[in-house]
Amino acid sequence: MDTGRLEAFSDGVIAIIITIMVLELKVPHGEDINSLAPLLPVFLSYVLSFIYIGIYWNNHHHMLQICEKVTGPILWANLHLMFWLSLLPFSTAWMGENHFGTIPSTIYGFDLLMAAIAYWTLQQTIIASQGSDSILRKAIGKDWKGKASIFVYLGAIFAAFCLQWAAQLLFVLVAAAWLIPDRRIESVLVSKDH
Amino acid sequence: MDTGRLEAFSDGVIAIIITIMVLELKVPHGEDINSLAPLLPVFLSYVLSFIYIGIYWNNHHHMLQICEKVTGPILWANLHLMFWLSLLPFSTAWMGENHFGTIPSTIYGFDLLMAAIAYWTLQQTIIASQGSDSILRKAIGKDWKGKASIFVYLGAIFAAFCLQWAAQLLFVLVAAAWLIPDRRIESVLVSKDH
Amino acid sequence: MDTGRLEAFSDGVIAIIITIMVLELKVPHGEDINSLAPLLPVFLSYVLSFIYIGIYWNNHHHMLQICEKVTGPILWANLHLMFWLSLLPFSTAWMGENHFGTIPSTIYGFDLLMAAIAYWTLQQTIIASQGSDSILRKAIGKDWKGKASIFVYLGAIFAAFCLQWAAQLLFVLVAAAWLIPDRRIESVLVSKDH
Amino acid sequence: MDTGRLEAFSDGVIAIIITIMVLELKVPHGEDINSLAPLLPVFLSYVLSFIYIGIYWNNHHHMLQICEKVTGPILWANLHLMFWLSLLPFSTAWMGENHFGTIPSTIYGFDLLMAAIAYWTLQQTIIASQGSDSILRKAIGKDWKGKASIFVYLGAIFAAFCLQWAAQLLFVLVAAAWLIPDRRIESVLVSKDH
Repeated sequence: MDTGRLEAFSDGVIAIIITIMVLELKVPHGEDINSLAPLLPVFLSYVLSFIYIGIYWNNHHHMLQICEKVTGPILWANLHLMFWLSLLPFSTAWMGENHFGTIPSTIYGFDLLMAAIAYWTLQQTIIASQGSDSILRKAIGKDWKGKASIFVYLGAIFAAFCLQWAAQLLFVLVAAAWLIPDRRIESVLVSKDH
Repeated sequence: MDTGRLEAFSDGVIAIIITIMVLELKVPHGEDINSLAPLLPVFLSYVLSFIYIGIYWNNHHHMLQICEKVTGPILWANLHLMFWLSLLPFSTAWMGENHFGTIPSTIYGFDLLMAAIAYWTLQQTIIASQGSDSILRKAIGKDWKGKASIFVYLGAIFAAFCLQWAAQLLFVLVAAAWLIPDRRIESVLVSKDH
Repeated sequence: MDTGRLEAFSDGVIAIIITIMVLELKVPHGEDINSLAPLLPVFLSYVLSFIYIGIYWNNHHHMLQICEKVTGPILWANLHLMFWLSLLPFSTAWMGENHFGTIPSTIYGFDLLMAAIAYWTLQQTIIASQGSDSILRKAIGKDWKGKASIFVYLGAIFAAFCLQWAAQLLFVLVAAAWLIPDRRIESVLVSKDH
Repeated sequence: MDTGRLEAFSDGVIAIIITIMVLELKVPHGEDINSLAPLLPVFLSYVLSFIYIGIYWNNHHHMLQICEKVTGPILWANLHLMFWLSLLPFSTAWMGENHFGTIPSTIYGFDLLMAAIAYWTLQQTIIASQGSDSILRKAIGKDWKGKASIFVYLGAIFAAFCLQWAAQLLFVLVAAAWLIPDRRIESVLVSKDH
């Protein structure tokens, strides 16, 4: 089974998630600039989640390029990742509407944490399916960025209880670290072509 | 007519169904952990339906891999399946918001029952189009899992009237039975390649 | 420019339209069977529109199979069709929630009428782009079904003012006439292969 | 990395944006013709945005046809464009519900302005990736239409403060100017084939 339809389905789900989040930006009733003010935190959390979903789409795209066959466990590991991403519109809106309060920020961080674990699981499932000379394993190397992110999310969850702004800062930092495209996989693809 | 556009359209519809279900998880107004509590049954029914739709996508994907030409009746049998799946966001939300009460659970079971019948009809339509040496017929064999599911859904509908938790248990059991990927089709595909 | 991306975009739009219509089936607050009763007309109008959009997808799919190059006018004629189809979730819900009343049924019929005209325009635009020996022109022949539908929609709009049930009957009749797949295009495709 | 999945993802996002805008056309409670009247400005703003998104899809489609490889910066420039387009359902609905008032029209113009800048950035990113003999650079020439649009949006934002109807007129004028398909890219594609 090739990766075509798995990519198409994941693209569809990710495109919908990134787009329906905007439905939580409820159209205000007033028409002056003040009626936009309460939307600012919702808008900021929308921007943050838009970037996160963009990063996931980007990395997912790269990872599947060096995955040749799709097995049953890969299909389910992929759906598991989609599940946690599908909750982002909810956790984003709840965090935004409550001005980045403790519990909503914790839940948001938990959702990101579970998505990161699901991504890592999908990666391991693909590596396992590729056997001992897995190109994906070579490409990701020690995967310190993936592992570090999981610990930073845990840190953000704890920070939300004492220093609310620190939790947000950590979310922004992880996103910034991932914005840089994953050159490991690109270099493997280039070397494979030669 | 090849299966490409039928798969693309079905993928689109299924991706949207699995994603818009999350819109029924309404963002709570409070920001403490208690405001999440009423969402728990809605969340649980979301998880159940997410798994069901994942199973349908997975099996649909497998089945269409051994379908080579698409006829008019196959297009309509496929739309019929999409119709019952498209009602899942509604029946899921109604069951979740009413804490798995009798009537909502019955309707949910009825929706799953109709989707199972529609899937079976689609399967029979493809078999009929493939003629007497249908590979799909060989692949599914006696299709006991498909037939048994229909009876278990019927059982769950009746259980909802006397033992509510039993209905939910039956829904979970059917999902668990299908989570194991359908090796019958994979083995047919493998043997075809040799 | 080939038809691939036009088909993909149209499939996406049609898949979303057919699926978001279900969001207008609002989850009732009660949990007894009576709370479903007010939803019956909304459900019936959903079924009708689901079938109509299925027919459009089906015919669009067939028509684009015998269209080889996409020109600027074809792109816009296609978007024009998507526009009127995109209003169906609105006109369907309004008609359903008002129990098939005069004005909502008129607007629903007007939407179907405009979609039929837009489909006909798209067909003519493709024929024009194919030049004097257009295969699409040969395939559709006199296109009596397309032309008759336009008149039946006009009839239904007038019927809505005096005999409400007659308008619905006409909507159902047109849908029934189109459910039969368009063998004209299939036969042209088959003869082209020989 | 080829453009296939980037196109598929962008098509998905654009198809969803163009379709969920219709969810802001709230179904009225009454069933007479007067209950439609308050929807007229929302409908008109929907038509305007539908045309704008159609134009973006069309031009995006053309531009990516002469882009052969996708780099990290192109992926992010594309997501940046998707971000501003994803806000159109919000800004469209706010402008429509407030009868094209000053602040909502300003925000709508700002959203169009940012989308135009994002489109221009994406174009420059593709040109940069193609090196000194970029075909896209030859195709767009001086790109006066792209640059002029940015200034007209700025003009519309200022007009919204003194002459509200002039702002709307400018929005309509830019759309009209872009409705004509971009023959520059088509002519480059044709000459490449020879």
